[in-house]
Amino acid sequence: MKIGFIGLGQMGSGMAANLLKAGHEVTVYNRTPEKAQPLIAQGAMIANDIANACQGDVVYTMLANDEAVNAVVHGDNGILARLAKGATHISGSTISVELSARLTDAHASAGQNFISAPVFGRPAAAASAQLFIVAAGASDAVEKAMPLFDAIGQKTFVISQTQSAANLLKLSGNFLIAAVIESLGEAMALVGKGGIDIHQYLDIITSSLFTAPVYKTYGGLIADRKFEPAGFAAPLGQKDIRLTLAAAENLSVPMPLASLLRDRFITLAAQQGGERLDWAAIGGLAAKDAGL
Amino acid sequence: MKIGFIGLGQMGSGMAANLLKAGHEVTVYNRTPEKAQPLIAQGAMIANDIANACQGDVVYTMLANDEAVNAVVHGDNGILARLAKGATHISGSTISVELSARLTDAHASAGQNFISAPVFGRPAAAASAQLFIVAAGASDAVEKAMPLFDAIGQKTFVISQTQSAANLLKLSGNFLIAAVIESLGEAMALVGKGGIDIHQYLDIITSSLFTAPVYKTYGGLIADRKFEPAGFAAPLGQKDIRLTLAAAENLSVPMPLASLLRDRFITLAAQQGGERLDWAAIGGLAAKDAGL
Amino acid sequence: MKIGFIGLGQMGSGMAANLLKAGHEVTVYNRTPEKAQPLIAQGAMIANDIANACQGDVVYTMLANDEAVNAVVHGDNGILARLAKGATHISGSTISVELSARLTDAHASAGQNFISAPVFGRPAAAASAQLFIVAAGASDAVEKAMPLFDAIGQKTFVISQTQSAANLLKLSGNFLIAAVIESLGEAMALVGKGGIDIHQYLDIITSSLFTAPVYKTYGGLIADRKFEPAGFAAPLGQKDIRLTLAAAENLSVPMPLASLLRDRFITLAAQQGGERLDWAAIGGLAAKDAGL
Amino acid sequence: MKIGFIGLGQMGSGMAANLLKAGHEVTVYNRTPEKAQPLIAQGAMIANDIANACQGDVVYTMLANDEAVNAVVHGDNGILARLAKGATHISGSTISVELSARLTDAHASAGQNFISAPVFGRPAAAASAQLFIVAAGASDAVEKAMPLFDAIGQKTFVISQTQSAANLLKLSGNFLIAAVIESLGEAMALVGKGGIDIHQYLDIITSSLFTAPVYKTYGGLIADRKFEPAGFAAPLGQKDIRLTLAAAENLSVPMPLASLLRDRFITLAAQQGGERLDWAAIGGLAAKDAGL
Repeated sequence: MKIGFIGLGQMGSGMAANLLKAGHEVTVYNRTPEKAQPLIAQGAMIANDIANACQGDVVYTMLANDEAVNAVVHGDNGILARLAKGATHISGSTISVELSARLTDAHASAGQNFISAPVFGRPAAAASAQLFIVAAGASDAVEKAMPLFDAIGQKTFVISQTQSAANLLKLSGNFLIAAVIESLGEAMALVGKGGIDIHQYLDIITSSLFTAPVYKTYGGLIADRKFEPAGFAAPLGQKDIRLTLAAAENLSVPMPLASLLRDRFITLAAQQGGERLDWAAIGGLAAKDAGL
Repeated sequence: MKIGFIGLGQMGSGMAANLLKAGHEVTVYNRTPEKAQPLIAQGAMIANDIANACQGDVVYTMLANDEAVNAVVHGDNGILARLAKGATHISGSTISVELSARLTDAHASAGQNFISAPVFGRPAAAASAQLFIVAAGASDAVEKAMPLFDAIGQKTFVISQTQSAANLLKLSGNFLIAAVIESLGEAMALVGKGGIDIHQYLDIITSSLFTAPVYKTYGGLIADRKFEPAGFAAPLGQKDIRLTLAAAENLSVPMPLASLLRDRFITLAAQQGGERLDWAAIGGLAAKDAGL
Repeated sequence: MKIGFIGLGQMGSGMAANLLKAGHEVTVYNRTPEKAQPLIAQGAMIANDIANACQGDVVYTMLANDEAVNAVVHGDNGILARLAKGATHISGSTISVELSARLTDAHASAGQNFISAPVFGRPAAAASAQLFIVAAGASDAVEKAMPLFDAIGQKTFVISQTQSAANLLKLSGNFLIAAVIESLGEAMALVGKGGIDIHQYLDIITSSLFTAPVYKTYGGLIADRKFEPAGFAAPLGQKDIRLTLAAAENLSVPMPLASLLRDRFITLAAQQGGERLDWAAIGGLAAKDAGL
Repeated sequence: MKIGFIGLGQMGSGMAANLLKAGHEVTVYNRTPEKAQPLIAQGAMIANDIANACQGDVVYTMLANDEAVNAVVHGDNGILARLAKGATHISGSTISVELSARLTDAHASAGQNFISAPVFGRPAAAASAQLFIVAAGASDAVEKAMPLFDAIGQKTFVISQTQSAANLLKLSGNFLIAAVIESLGEAMALVGKGGIDIHQYLDIITSSLFTAPVYKTYGGLIADRKFEPAGFAAPLGQKDIRLTLAAAENLSVPMPLASLLRDRFITLAAQQGGERLDWAAIGGLAAKDAGL
């Protein structure tokens, strides 16, 4: 397929490279064009503006937040104005449920398809095509896009024909991860202050009840207090919990644990340098409050 | 080994049976003696009082709470008075850190060994010798007891020479499980009210990021709203969070997520029939608050 | 002074009437013009559009939320376009800190004055000129506006030259009131379930330590479970806590009690008919969770 | 009346002095006898043991916690053993609901009266006979004790014939005060970080909506960050919230705000020197988390 790819951050670079490897014709665009160099070496063409990335069957966006997505979608040179009728915009970004619904309507009005396809996985998983993809959109459009998802991930879950459902699921998943971080942070503060070696503790719980990789990954970061450099930065985690709570408020679903997580992220943001830390750093706050 | 076994509830019955299978000589005692019948059929002897269960190398207790343990330990016919010097009391119960420390001192004064060895696993795991055991005590005593742990569990973690460390670890583990239940309850209320099928949701998250069995087990109970009969009753979960918070307060470790769980259990207890439910039922409260 | 007054709800009607009584020339505007009738009887002129209410020295707006304020400020016929240079817009509404800051800039660009002057008090206080007014803006503009504030309130606090400070203060005040409601709700659930008569309880605490009228007012509503009709509707309270938390997140100030209040309002919103209740109804949720 | 008075701390000393002033015959006892000297100068007799303080119509105890009360009630020389049949034990201490119920039974078995009469007020109020007293007990016993209450307080509320009701009410009152502290702490962190002068802020809110003295007292301490010396020490506040939550758990009443307060006190306790601070110091934690 002929694909435009917009957004070459830690995640997008890996995804675009895997699309190339799978034999697709990929034109990349990034606000800061230097990031495109390694991909050009792998066979990508470069677009000098967004319009140029909208010439193919699909334009794939992988951006940090609602603002960044809005910036490439709207305007005279934006995706809405420049993508052909019948072509497809696939959004891999973690954006708000509300924006996803608005994009669905806007693309429909423009005669374009819109697929929401956020991913689970950190940069290493993006590089090794091991992402999990949650896709929602019109069935035929999603079916056509499956080869792309196969190229970048280990498994694709088609969740709904309503695009925003994929965003809601993605947000809820990040909430679940943040809950793991918080629970580990509290448990490790408790047993650590109680005299138990927290690395041994982590070995025990992750080789018995909590065998999911998230426990090992985040437990290890907390045990080592290794919150820099950030694999997934705290402000992004804060954004995701904010969007989760916004969706929950719109649906009238009280989520007290999400509220607690929100307060943790704000506490982190108030610390000097807090914005540079990995979101795992909220797992260090219980220990701090305990005077450790 | 010659073992007395006190406490033939859902967990203890399976454990005693596996000790018999491993060839040990087991004398069982239960407050309501009928529960001993199946074990007698498997070769157990029956003790008509606690003193009678204290004639061997080891007395193993598997009881519901601090009160039940205190009741068999103290008094003229209790374990402290009747167990031989040099013999060992193994406590498999989930009891308070404080009681564990007191038992350590009391047994030391009586010239007896005390091993704290709480277990992770539900009744089915006890029956099939698939428990995880967390053991703490004097090294030589623990070493001698290893064949018993091998007989009842799939893996034994020796965590410390300080007995109460095992209890703290066990409590923290139950806290982590309850945190999983709460996080799933909130996430499933959110996506469910947002129009996503929660069974499909559960399939997706447990086949991607949250592969640990606890997510499948408790997620399934929440999705099906199947909280009866109780595999692990809510009042026991409430007790464990209470003991976790008591230990945390003694150590000056604030645990806001544990506080939230405590409030959930109390809310459950205030419902008619709440005490009969599985502790997974706290995972149904977010949906209830959301009007689902 | 020659004043336009926009927004004749429960609060605005009383305020406009008191401006008339004080001898000012008042032209009123309301989206649904019938509400203007009683004021016309008291000497007000009626404006048939917003522009018509912008002919004087001051235009005073008293509206429900950000959206309503934006709707009268912007557009060809809006306040920004139609108010004379050097004239003043006084905003009495409880709006976001962010909107207040934006209005400040917009009016400055248009050569107009902007005073933010939110009020404390329920409709009865507005009718009897017993409001408390918190005003912020350029000193000379505020000084000129003082006779208006004197006409509608019992006391005016000039808090800052930065307009949005008044909005932040107002939001924090509503947070404090909601905190009183929540604390009373929990305390009364506790003592009520413990067998104490909650009306007697309320008499005792409000005649000893908690003599502020808010305790009497809201305690009484909770004790009587009298949450309809709403003096201040729950969705407005929910909005104010949302705006408080938004301001707090922008400033990186974690407010766990505000988070709890937010969850309470969402729980209320999820109940059938919850949106019609007085915000005091969050004080009934503890009793409900306690099975009362 | 002939009164024994046990417990001459900051509160008890003032109360005993006021009983003397009212013309009663007072025999005082304190574990550290030096504290009795000023009262002897005012006409008190001194008891060299608890039994000696139990010779009159009434023995009045004013002690720090459950342990201290238990220590003077039980034993061969304790109040239960030494107080005459028909005489009355008045407990002014803030103790658990559970202990109050146990004392009620124990005194009834011994043919003695028991009145629970906790007080609201800080040491200055005790010295100036300005306490509020909440009394519960058998009507005739309470009636006889009224002159004593009149001597030490400004107002007595007879709440119930069930003694423990007075303790529940007292605990709930301290919960309400702690809630005021927390809410002020969060509000002042918010407006302070937002650029508002917090002393001016406090003036405004306490001269408008929050006129109860607790707002002035605690708001002032928070604004000045003046948490030493302690008028009411944080560990006592922590104890009271713990007892509130214990009573609430026994009654199955979830109190999430009380849980939040509990976590705040534990955070304070984990700080170096936290135990020396006034309980108002929990009102400084929001500012700390906000990086102020």
